[in-house]
Amino acid sequence: MNAEVNLDFGRAARTGFSEVIYCPGKSDGQLSLIAQEIARRREEESENESTLFSRVTPEQHEIITRHLPDAVFHERARITGVGTRGGRHYRGVAVVTAGSGDVPVAEEAAVTAEYMGCEVKRLYDVGVAGIHRLLARLPDLREARAIVAVAGMEGALPTVLGGLVSCPVIAVPTSVGYGVNFGGVAPLLTMLNSCALGVTVVNIDNGIGGGYAAATIVRQIYERQG
Amino acid sequence: MNAEVNLDFGRAARTGFSEVIYCPGKSDGQLSLIAQEIARRREEESENESTLFSRVTPEQHEIITRHLPDAVFHERARITGVGTRGGRHYRGVAVVTAGSGDVPVAEEAAVTAEYMGCEVKRLYDVGVAGIHRLLARLPDLREARAIVAVAGMEGALPTVLGGLVSCPVIAVPTSVGYGVNFGGVAPLLTMLNSCALGVTVVNIDNGIGGGYAAATIVRQIYERQG
Amino acid sequence: MNAEVNLDFGRAARTGFSEVIYCPGKSDGQLSLIAQEIARRREEESENESTLFSRVTPEQHEIITRHLPDAVFHERARITGVGTRGGRHYRGVAVVTAGSGDVPVAEEAAVTAEYMGCEVKRLYDVGVAGIHRLLARLPDLREARAIVAVAGMEGALPTVLGGLVSCPVIAVPTSVGYGVNFGGVAPLLTMLNSCALGVTVVNIDNGIGGGYAAATIVRQIYERQG
Amino acid sequence: MNAEVNLDFGRAARTGFSEVIYCPGKSDGQLSLIAQEIARRREEESENESTLFSRVTPEQHEIITRHLPDAVFHERARITGVGTRGGRHYRGVAVVTAGSGDVPVAEEAAVTAEYMGCEVKRLYDVGVAGIHRLLARLPDLREARAIVAVAGMEGALPTVLGGLVSCPVIAVPTSVGYGVNFGGVAPLLTMLNSCALGVTVVNIDNGIGGGYAAATIVRQIYERQG
Amino acid sequence: MNAEVNLDFGRAARTGFSEVIYCPGKSDGQLSLIAQEIARRREEESENESTLFSRVTPEQHEIITRHLPDAVFHERARITGVGTRGGRHYRGVAVVTAGSGDVPVAEEAAVTAEYMGCEVKRLYDVGVAGIHRLLARLPDLREARAIVAVAGMEGALPTVLGGLVSCPVIAVPTSVGYGVNFGGVAPLLTMLNSCALGVTVVNIDNGIGGGYAAATIVRQIYERQG
Amino acid sequence: MNAEVNLDFGRAARTGFSEVIYCPGKSDGQLSLIAQEIARRREEESENESTLFSRVTPEQHEIITRHLPDAVFHERARITGVGTRGGRHYRGVAVVTAGSGDVPVAEEAAVTAEYMGCEVKRLYDVGVAGIHRLLARLPDLREARAIVAVAGMEGALPTVLGGLVSCPVIAVPTSVGYGVNFGGVAPLLTMLNSCALGVTVVNIDNGIGGGYAAATIVRQIYERQG
Amino acid sequence: MNAEVNLDFGRAARTGFSEVIYCPGKSDGQLSLIAQEIARRREEESENESTLFSRVTPEQHEIITRHLPDAVFHERARITGVGTRGGRHYRGVAVVTAGSGDVPVAEEAAVTAEYMGCEVKRLYDVGVAGIHRLLARLPDLREARAIVAVAGMEGALPTVLGGLVSCPVIAVPTSVGYGVNFGGVAPLLTMLNSCALGVTVVNIDNGIGGGYAAATIVRQIYERQG
Amino acid sequence: MNAEVNLDFGRAARTGFSEVIYCPGKSDGQLSLIAQEIARRREEESENESTLFSRVTPEQHEIITRHLPDAVFHERARITGVGTRGGRHYRGVAVVTAGSGDVPVAEEAAVTAEYMGCEVKRLYDVGVAGIHRLLARLPDLREARAIVAVAGMEGALPTVLGGLVSCPVIAVPTSVGYGVNFGGVAPLLTMLNSCALGVTVVNIDNGIGGGYAAATIVRQIYERQG
Repeated sequence: MNAEVNLDFGRAARTGFSEVIYCPGKSDGQLSLIAQEIARRREEESENESTLFSRVTPEQHEIITRHLPDAVFHERARITGVGTRGGRHYRGVAVVTAGSGDVPVAEEAAVTAEYMGCEVKRLYDVGVAGIHRLLARLPDLREARAIVAVAGMEGALPTVLGGLVSCPVIAVPTSVGYGVNFGGVAPLLTMLNSCALGVTVVNIDNGIGGGYAAATIVRQIYERQG
Repeated sequence: MNAEVNLDFGRAARTGFSEVIYCPGKSDGQLSLIAQEIARRREEESENESTLFSRVTPEQHEIITRHLPDAVFHERARITGVGTRGGRHYRGVAVVTAGSGDVPVAEEAAVTAEYMGCEVKRLYDVGVAGIHRLLARLPDLREARAIVAVAGMEGALPTVLGGLVSCPVIAVPTSVGYGVNFGGVAPLLTMLNSCALGVTVVNIDNGIGGGYAAATIVRQIYERQG
Repeated sequence: MNAEVNLDFGRAARTGFSEVIYCPGKSDGQLSLIAQEIARRREEESENESTLFSRVTPEQHEIITRHLPDAVFHERARITGVGTRGGRHYRGVAVVTAGSGDVPVAEEAAVTAEYMGCEVKRLYDVGVAGIHRLLARLPDLREARAIVAVAGMEGALPTVLGGLVSCPVIAVPTSVGYGVNFGGVAPLLTMLNSCALGVTVVNIDNGIGGGYAAATIVRQIYERQG
Repeated sequence: MNAEVNLDFGRAARTGFSEVIYCPGKSDGQLSLIAQEIARRREEESENESTLFSRVTPEQHEIITRHLPDAVFHERARITGVGTRGGRHYRGVAVVTAGSGDVPVAEEAAVTAEYMGCEVKRLYDVGVAGIHRLLARLPDLREARAIVAVAGMEGALPTVLGGLVSCPVIAVPTSVGYGVNFGGVAPLLTMLNSCALGVTVVNIDNGIGGGYAAATIVRQIYERQG
Repeated sequence: MNAEVNLDFGRAARTGFSEVIYCPGKSDGQLSLIAQEIARRREEESENESTLFSRVTPEQHEIITRHLPDAVFHERARITGVGTRGGRHYRGVAVVTAGSGDVPVAEEAAVTAEYMGCEVKRLYDVGVAGIHRLLARLPDLREARAIVAVAGMEGALPTVLGGLVSCPVIAVPTSVGYGVNFGGVAPLLTMLNSCALGVTVVNIDNGIGGGYAAATIVRQIYERQG
Repeated sequence: MNAEVNLDFGRAARTGFSEVIYCPGKSDGQLSLIAQEIARRREEESENESTLFSRVTPEQHEIITRHLPDAVFHERARITGVGTRGGRHYRGVAVVTAGSGDVPVAEEAAVTAEYMGCEVKRLYDVGVAGIHRLLARLPDLREARAIVAVAGMEGALPTVLGGLVSCPVIAVPTSVGYGVNFGGVAPLLTMLNSCALGVTVVNIDNGIGGGYAAATIVRQIYERQG
Repeated sequence: MNAEVNLDFGRAARTGFSEVIYCPGKSDGQLSLIAQEIARRREEESENESTLFSRVTPEQHEIITRHLPDAVFHERARITGVGTRGGRHYRGVAVVTAGSGDVPVAEEAAVTAEYMGCEVKRLYDVGVAGIHRLLARLPDLREARAIVAVAGMEGALPTVLGGLVSCPVIAVPTSVGYGVNFGGVAPLLTMLNSCALGVTVVNIDNGIGGGYAAATIVRQIYERQG
Repeated sequence: MNAEVNLDFGRAARTGFSEVIYCPGKSDGQLSLIAQEIARRREEESENESTLFSRVTPEQHEIITRHLPDAVFHERARITGVGTRGGRHYRGVAVVTAGSGDVPVAEEAAVTAEYMGCEVKRLYDVGVAGIHRLLARLPDLREARAIVAVAGMEGALPTVLGGLVSCPVIAVPTSVGYGVNFGGVAPLLTMLNSCALGVTVVNIDNGIGGGYAAATIVRQIYERQG
């Protein structure tokens, strides 16, 4: 490849999944080179792991498809996906949101997990100010093996969830809110301070990271024996 | 009085309650002068409103009682109270805590409201990571006319409460926690960002302010007609 | 409803007022579904509580009125209201601002309280750098049973007010200011640190929350007996 | 129990592990009541899940052992443990530290996971400024199914680790450092911003949370079939 | 002098006042050398400007008096003064505090201005939550030519003052307060955001700076003609 | 006036200068009412103090001139001025900038002082990284009676200045810079921490406040006798 | 020059390199005057040091070339350069980036060092989540005498580098990232807390400063004897 | 070595200097093991590079000398040094402080550079509020090849220095100060925002890092040819 982009192609072997290309700030030229190189690998070297481009704009998706014509654009998730989605049928990932404004970040998580082979259950807008909405979904939640809990505003959802289920809960704060929400810092702090044990946290609006971690957890149940 | 302390004696007439004396940083001499002046007023001018000294150390309580021998020390609340407690039988104040570590701040709120004439219901350690503990107390909570919700850690309690009751909820963040709790800033932000409407907030560990506001709300129900 | 929006219809029964729909970040499709569902409820189930949409853009108001043609747009308050305004004649809510730049947030508070049944007295631009302007309005202020005090810049208004009246004061910081105003953080801190007791605070620019809390306080005087 | 402590005894059934009692700020009386109640449950109701007391001082351990004489004090981890340690032989938890100053937090994580039934591999002082120390441990690291990566200072360890292994990495920032370390905020930010996918994060010095999450992940491999 | 201390003896000529020696962090040896050198200058070179040592501990005062036996310790102001106090009879400096806890910082300002030649009027504990206390002192305040306004908590005093007088107001925030007072940051922000024009601000608890600036302002009225 | 704007017309009598109208966030209607009222006062009541509108956009200037046709727009200073400029010939205000990017804020200060009656000396782009540029202007600086020192980036100018002159120095931080300049917070902190005594500080980019304070200081030399 | 710009022409003599003109916030008039003055100096006084304009927009470049027609625009680096590039053949500067999004800042560093006389080796996109990419470049890195390490996201690159090489490492944090990256504050903190000794840091996105410091270090090896 | 400490003995070969052992938070047992291992290496493997222990308490020094009896304690620098000091006669490192309170951090830098082989010139208490003190030392400063500039308070020293010399300036902020000094954050920001090019910065109070970087720069002049 050229001097400015330097893809990490051994990654799938090392970590079990290909690199996710973070697109903001990439020049069109850089993106084009990356897409070209991925295309070459898929063809010449039969690389068959899925690859994701994250935070993609429609214009960037256009550039990518010039070299990877089968790439699919997931508009709400702002992801361009290359490869198979949901193909390994790993069950047990649930993505939950507190509000409807959190859906784009939740979709980012869900689509990521799907490209990593999972089937994903979506439970949206079940936030804690009307606690009965969450309690009504307990049977679904208790079946999950990894829950991605997406919430903005005050971010209380993962705390309540964490006390109700036995599987790992990955909390994703979102920048939905205003004033002292501080662009998602408030729900992030809420989640890090959660009095519910076992809740772990990723960066604000980092749906990719949340979905990736959940898929990694569930994958092991299928791939490893005690 | 002397040049350095300048009590606001018209306060009870204007606002319905006497000044609360914030004691940290007061020199022994200042405190002595204040106690002396209050004693004089109670005797000479038949001032009969209760007065509170807040964040009192045992040593400071000693100084106060030299001039006000009937003053009572509420150790956990760190309050020295002068006057009658609970005498007006205003009902409807509930003080709720998320954890047992929040009890000192809750006591500060409860004792304050009691000196302002209220009867106070205490519901402690009912936090949200085990949501059933809170739901079990719903009948009590729904009878309240003003709830002081005291919580540290991630501070999610007032949000959950706010969606369950119709009376005003006053949230008091506490400095119980560590790391990115930031001495109570995290639960403060949670409370200010609460997606539950009608929740209002006071400073970290400000039990006095929480109890005072609750008493003010309930007092009006008794004193004013529509 | 569909998978992404999940309205909390029991809310009026539980808390005495319907959900307020926070509109920023909602997609047009989500908003349309919500409006449709509210319309259905008002018709089929004779739900007759008022409902508010907050931080509405003119375009979003358009979408709402397709299903709720009687909805009213309060432009300055950025609220779309459904239902009756001021109908219960609860008296005693006053909304006060420090400057004229704080008026939009004050209107948000006032309109919210009106939809909850209150009559609202507006006292605008009476800030503390010319203290006589505030003192001139003391008779009005002393009649109030809940004051929403809206202020940006340094946010000193609620402190001065809190020492002059006996009713609860709900302070609403605004993002009016520049430099170390930090988008409203400075007046928020001023209000939380207020040396006047009984002042409680809501999030920056949260007129909805301020008006809601005031209405909740006043409503109890009418609905409950001691 | 008494009014101030309100243990969540259903927790083991709901979440698979008993409550962890956070001890700072608890009064001796509260702690005594809690220990007493746990003793009663273990005896009368044959509750046999392990229970942990965290951030325990030697004085607090003394109080606990009055009612729970078999409780074990893990001094470095500041944990008092009740019940069996490592008994379920869940393999695959590794606890790694960047420096030797991070060991107390790492021990907190390791002991927690052990009481939850795991066998734990400890790899301490392998930080990234001498990267060969980490690379030398790759075989051990690649066998793990959940890695708790504990680091203070700049907190780069989980990022480097995250690119080398396929299992979930739970990052625990510590307050080891000075100046703009800000008591652990700097490594926390490093971990949340990690360019390595799948890294999730807990609060500063939260060894309990890190160990708990890791045990939860590994437990599922043993307990659930795909 | 020795290698480690390097006094700025030309300062009085350049700026009209000698260096103020900030004592925290100075070793005993450094302090001794400084005192010795000042003594030498006063004797040999008839330097007759006053010199101040600020934030002095009683132990440090002891060290200073070994070489400067006439030095006076102002305990509350934590100042050791060398030279004449109030000797030039510059009138017009007023030092005002919001609370009685702010008195130590106010004394620091007052004593500094006195050593610079001023007569100082002290008006303590006149804060804004009982605004009548401040209004009662208006005649005194309107005679001042420079007001040092010292306030902790929410710091609203200089704003109210700034709208009532025509002379410059120098605001000194203090660290009196708790929670989101953040050690004086909250009143500092209040003062910097003040909607009253002409208010200027110094560092938290910087009584020295406040008194110095006020003396500089008043001195010019005596020393300079238009 | 109408309900939303409430001018403080007694201000000139109390503080020696009329209100400065801060224009951002004011609606066109509000601005029009204010201009109209000022026009009325100048005509009917022979109010002859100058009035300033600050942070004015060209569009807002247009609205103002409809009622006040003689108003002058100072584009760089973003001020619309009504009344006489420099008319009282108060000498001694100097406005100094560190860089050329700080000029707009400096002009705001200079124009303000001019409308308050002062003659202003401008010394721009003399910042401290080439210290000789500042030292070359010492004669001018030492003649000043109040210096407004305007600086962005690291904001070191007032510290160096403060050690060279005997008059008061008012420091105005600007938002010129990037990265950890944090929109002017870095130079603000530099100025508040200045080791040069007598430096006082105003809000970021607050040229108005700086010029106002300087004029207030100089005015007294002319108006008051010792 | 005119009153508003005041170039520091002695700088090359004092510091070995001409002033770098920071262009944001400069008016077109100011920029034109600066370019004119530089042109005059280069012609009349045979000034032959290179001069740089930083953070230049294409429009600003246009203005500069009116007076300096040979000026070269380096688009990615946002630098307009006047004079010779790379002419002194100082070898040993390497510029390294973690990601491809960091390239513009890296180019700013590289071009600056080149105008100061250096030859620069560029190693881009070798970040630490795939550590083998960095290790593969060790021979190049170990030849360097000053490394500029440019990284956004979590900013771990300089720490890993610092443990592998013996020359000085200058870390440049970039604003590449989102959420708690806080516009580059997170990698800045990582770099300042680096457990690798000898790493020094410049402001966020300050490629100029990084390249300048590296060139200064390397220049001495050529110009000075031990 | 044992499981908890894992010294990086290849470091001297890779980076030219042995590991510096950061002592805070190390247990006595860990420290003892480290000292023992270093002793063994120096004896058995003729390791002859110097080694430093930083932030050492007198008690920790005692423990170290049990195994390394020749270790020297530098009390002010809080360093225990093993090996030769100043032995390579690298000239050109100057350590400068703004105030006398900054001396301990400066000593940490100076002693570090000395153990790395340098001769160090110390210029203390030459800060910028009396700029003539700094200008008087220009000849010394201009001879330096790397200057460590140590300053607390507002931290302006490196900016002024940076404009006067041609060698690299490494700025070390100290925590000397109060209020909005924020434990050294204010001078750190000043230094990072410095308008003087070529200034690079290390963590607050990080004398070790400053001295190490300076020694690394100067060493290259001796060891490498162009």
